[in-house]
Amino acid sequence: MVVQSLYGPVQQDMARVEAILSGIRDVEYGPLARMLSQVMGAGGKRVRPALALLAGTFRDYDLELLVPLAASIEVLHTATLVHDDVIDVAATRRGRATANALFSNAPSVMLGDFMFAHAAELVARTGNVRVIRLFARTLMRMATGELDQDVSAFDASKRIGDYLQRIGGKTASLLGTACEGGAIVSGAPEPWVEGLRDYGFNLGMAFQIVDDILDFTGNEEVMGKPVGGDLREGTLTLPSLLLLEDDPSRRNPVRRLFNARRGRERLLEDAIAAIHAADVLDRSKAMAREFGDRAAHAIAELPDSEAHRTLLHLIDHVLDRES
Amino acid sequence: MVVQSLYGPVQQDMARVEAILSGIRDVEYGPLARMLSQVMGAGGKRVRPALALLAGTFRDYDLELLVPLAASIEVLHTATLVHDDVIDVAATRRGRATANALFSNAPSVMLGDFMFAHAAELVARTGNVRVIRLFARTLMRMATGELDQDVSAFDASKRIGDYLQRIGGKTASLLGTACEGGAIVSGAPEPWVEGLRDYGFNLGMAFQIVDDILDFTGNEEVMGKPVGGDLREGTLTLPSLLLLEDDPSRRNPVRRLFNARRGRERLLEDAIAAIHAADVLDRSKAMAREFGDRAAHAIAELPDSEAHRTLLHLIDHVLDRES
Repeated sequence: MVVQSLYGPVQQDMARVEAILSGIRDVEYGPLARMLSQVMGAGGKRVRPALALLAGTFRDYDLELLVPLAASIEVLHTATLVHDDVIDVAATRRGRATANALFSNAPSVMLGDFMFAHAAELVARTGNVRVIRLFARTLMRMATGELDQDVSAFDASKRIGDYLQRIGGKTASLLGTACEGGAIVSGAPEPWVEGLRDYGFNLGMAFQIVDDILDFTGNEEVMGKPVGGDLREGTLTLPSLLLLEDDPSRRNPVRRLFNARRGRERLLEDAIAAIHAADVLDRSKAMAREFGDRAAHAIAELPDSEAHRTLLHLIDHVLDRES
Repeated sequence: MVVQSLYGPVQQDMARVEAILSGIRDVEYGPLARMLSQVMGAGGKRVRPALALLAGTFRDYDLELLVPLAASIEVLHTATLVHDDVIDVAATRRGRATANALFSNAPSVMLGDFMFAHAAELVARTGNVRVIRLFARTLMRMATGELDQDVSAFDASKRIGDYLQRIGGKTASLLGTACEGGAIVSGAPEPWVEGLRDYGFNLGMAFQIVDDILDFTGNEEVMGKPVGGDLREGTLTLPSLLLLEDDPSRRNPVRRLFNARRGRERLLEDAIAAIHAADVLDRSKAMAREFGDRAAHAIAELPDSEAHRTLLHLIDHVLDRES
């Protein structure tokens, strides 16, 4: 609950977002209701909806518009997780069984589609066509980022630039949109809209880099997923890309893992050990901090307020988190 | 090209819809561009966008609004086909290889998501929040219908009422929305909006029933898919449901097929033969005609026009089609 108190002035109003999220499972068709119950009940920190509300505090903080917007962002996020899990053939997420492990792939694809549509319906309740278009374009970027992750699996020729592009699409863009959307519906002036969008985007970059570091350093039980999962799936993240950059030879343990046809479990252990032995985790953390600094800088011109301080505090929280 | 001339007064304007549909493949990311090219190039009759334009002729026929609406409906439709093919593990559609056969499942899920988002972006260009919400709710119904088809596979206890509910969701709702959306953005009075929606919905019901009949009677080469495909996948459609209703005993060849653990190919042939021997195909056709009559009745109060006559003509075309 430490995270929840981080949301400062919008903490209380998050209950209204939660009420919409709980209501989503109220559909007539039983099998769908059960699936929705499973995936919406999985919880999570609700960072994205909190960002939408926080970004909405700088002008007209109208909950009639901000609450459906915030809920739509979380539903969109959860829908992408459902489809990601189908793609990754993931068995658990946040320590709970995934939809596709419980319900098989086919219904999970439809469940995700239903949720995308529901998210679109929620964002349309803002009545703000600019925000609706922003929302649609964000999903286009996210799908492209996820597609690239799949297409590039086990491709050791990828560069750090490709990685930043990909996490920009699959993660940071939605955090940017949460903030930008909140700013737009509250009628914030254009420079603030841009500042809040850049804040959210850079926070998202830091968030994803830390997530990718935790994939190597995290506690399996706390994280609810096995260590080294990205490499196992053939996904290069910042630590492994830095290791490849330092030693592009065929002896690089990541390259050996990606080229291997057998004995992968042992090679995976070698690669994880090499990443811990090098300085790449520290350098990754430094890069995350850089994005955190950019996030803080992006809102430097916005008026001081409890929400402003909360946004700055969230940067530290993202950088310091250990699960 | 017989079909195309059916679109009467909007025939010419369909080129503008087609231009948007061709432009969708123009994305930066190469693998996505190739996938979009494949699925958007597959053609099809473009019935849905034509309906949107036709429904828009009764008041302010504004192509700035109607063309993006029409294109969005077709993109939404194509996106659902991409996901359906993932679910059905279909190898061909309209005689061409499906996306998931060419690109494997994971990218096809993301491709469909990208297309949903693109469809949302297109419909948002109408600037009409009512139409955007209608669009979102339609996708919710479609996903529920598809989910039900998957969940009920090989369940011989399903009734004709369930079937009508399902095809209402997965097919008819989008044709209804195409007409309703066109009517709304053109500023048609409320009774006309309702009439056009009911026309589209009932036309869609007739269309799907005929499609399900053709699954038993069609020419494999013309249809581009094998005969009896629905039963093979465990999907009960009107002809097989009527056969089950006539003889609910365990000897019913459809029930025998669904209960069998082996020898399914032979049992499938038996079931197809039984459906041809009974009167269930004729009775299905009669039911399709009934929906066609309802479609005509729904627009009886609308002013006579070339578009009106085209809509009536389309009913006959849907009922008479043989592929």
